[in-house]
Amino acid sequence: MAPRSHDPEELFAAATKGERGALARLLSLVERGGEDARIVARLASPHVGKAYVVGITGAPGAGKSTLTSALIGELRKRGARVGVLAIDPSSPYTGGAILGDRVRMQDHTHDDKVYIRSMATRGHLGGLSLATSEAVRLLDATGHDWVIVETVGVGQVEVEIAGKADTSVVVVNPGWGDAVQANKAGLLEIADVFAINKADRDGVESTRRDLQAMIELTEFGESEWKPSISTTVATTGEGVEALLDAVSTHRRHMETVGELTQRREARRREELREIVERRLELRARELCSGAAWERLESRVASGAMDPWSAADEMLRGISA
Amino acid sequence: MAPRSHDPEELFAAATKGERGALARLLSLVERGGEDARIVARLASPHVGKAYVVGITGAPGAGKSTLTSALIGELRKRGARVGVLAIDPSSPYTGGAILGDRVRMQDHTHDDKVYIRSMATRGHLGGLSLATSEAVRLLDATGHDWVIVETVGVGQVEVEIAGKADTSVVVVNPGWGDAVQANKAGLLEIADVFAINKADRDGVESTRRDLQAMIELTEFGESEWKPSISTTVATTGEGVEALLDAVSTHRRHMETVGELTQRREARRREELREIVERRLELRARELCSGAAWERLESRVASGAMDPWSAADEMLRGISA
Repeated sequence: MAPRSHDPEELFAAATKGERGALARLLSLVERGGEDARIVARLASPHVGKAYVVGITGAPGAGKSTLTSALIGELRKRGARVGVLAIDPSSPYTGGAILGDRVRMQDHTHDDKVYIRSMATRGHLGGLSLATSEAVRLLDATGHDWVIVETVGVGQVEVEIAGKADTSVVVVNPGWGDAVQANKAGLLEIADVFAINKADRDGVESTRRDLQAMIELTEFGESEWKPSISTTVATTGEGVEALLDAVSTHRRHMETVGELTQRREARRREELREIVERRLELRARELCSGAAWERLESRVASGAMDPWSAADEMLRGISA
Repeated sequence: MAPRSHDPEELFAAATKGERGALARLLSLVERGGEDARIVARLASPHVGKAYVVGITGAPGAGKSTLTSALIGELRKRGARVGVLAIDPSSPYTGGAILGDRVRMQDHTHDDKVYIRSMATRGHLGGLSLATSEAVRLLDATGHDWVIVETVGVGQVEVEIAGKADTSVVVVNPGWGDAVQANKAGLLEIADVFAINKADRDGVESTRRDLQAMIELTEFGESEWKPSISTTVATTGEGVEALLDAVSTHRRHMETVGELTQRREARRREELREIVERRLELRARELCSGAAWERLESRVASGAMDPWSAADEMLRGISA
């Protein structure tokens, strides 16, 4: 094993050759989001665009991790190298998420063509969304043919994260209709493909009809994709090949109408916006701390200085 | 009548002499929040600290506007000049709020020692909080002895706005306990004085006991103020004098333990923070628009440039 390097360039070269330890360290740099994350992004950028990114989302307990594990197996049969990001916006720590995922995905832990990583919120939510973009970019640049991004739920952050996928798979279960009534609009907004998982249970057909009715009630443009519906039993692998075919059908549709390019361009635009916002936010935090800030703050607090003049003094060099 | 000036200095001089039109125009500048707002704040800053600021908040229909009107009457009896800001964070326009308030406060519309102004959200919520600070400052600097800030509800913005008062009065009604169970903690957080308004209805005593029990369950430090409870019938004026006495008692307590100075200092600190955040936000919006931004954005979208380098280019001069 090579000596532990902390130089992003060396780490990137090693990760490209398939060294998992180097990739893990790069992903940690990306998660931390400092100057090193920026260097990693610059190293990775020229090498991206080869990976196909699939999002897997749905309610807790829908079987997302098991389905992800089955999809990895199917992709491995086809000879692909696979990277997986398991993201839990509701968990402040990475630990818990890792445990659950590893249990379900342990079939693949000894396969050196599969790389699985858990990511969780660390403080700022915007940070997780941006860190996900960067992690996807890195997995793409280091030779993964497919990147699977697994997230829980359909809150605002989950929708943001789902927006980072080329194809979004929403996992539901038979009889889901009653349970998640309120979330249907959110699910439809992000779904390219629905997977009715645990399809060995009762109620598959009524769930399919329910989804179909919902899709038909939605306005789609002429060339636009209408979400397709697959049925799977992730625990046995039943229907997983067909689900992957459904993803490929969506991919071909997007390539034909030019939407894949559009989606990826929109994603990069969004990422740029996130970076600008994030950096201004960090800058604000920097400005609102330290000795100079405290000095000005005291003068404002005592009334010796008006807050606008103090802000001017802090923001000198920032205003246009 | 003097010719309509648009110069903040001339307007400020006229407003200080009691010209209502000039004050109205200054408040509009403050609401708009541009460079003129900054000039107004600088003009006003040396003249603040004389007004006592009372916040009136509570659920819709609790009788806040009628109570405010009654308080104005009581303060006028005592010879005070009064400024009122009626704020509705839930309304995007000023119009509706004005109408309701004016109906209830019309007793005072011909009194040139009373100035009443409605303010509402215009786009950004942070903007309303900051605009309220500036408006209070302006009313203070132009010779109003008392400033009453009336807001609806106890959401996050309302709590922020309540934080701008020296004394916060929370208005409840008999039997309130069942209706606003969930909001009690929020109410207790901001209340210095509770006013049980519509006290001619049934249930005053049980509401008082309920509030008292809630106050006793809360931990207060030794020198800390425990919210007092008044009962009022705003429509007849009953209890309004006693309510004002309760406000004065709170004021004397704060002056004695030094808390009034602390509150006002904390408020100015908070305002400085709001100004810095707001200006960085405006700067971000400015940066993320225009020809230069679009050029960089296109390069990022097409993959010709990585987003971090583009952000660097946009933020040149902002980074430390």
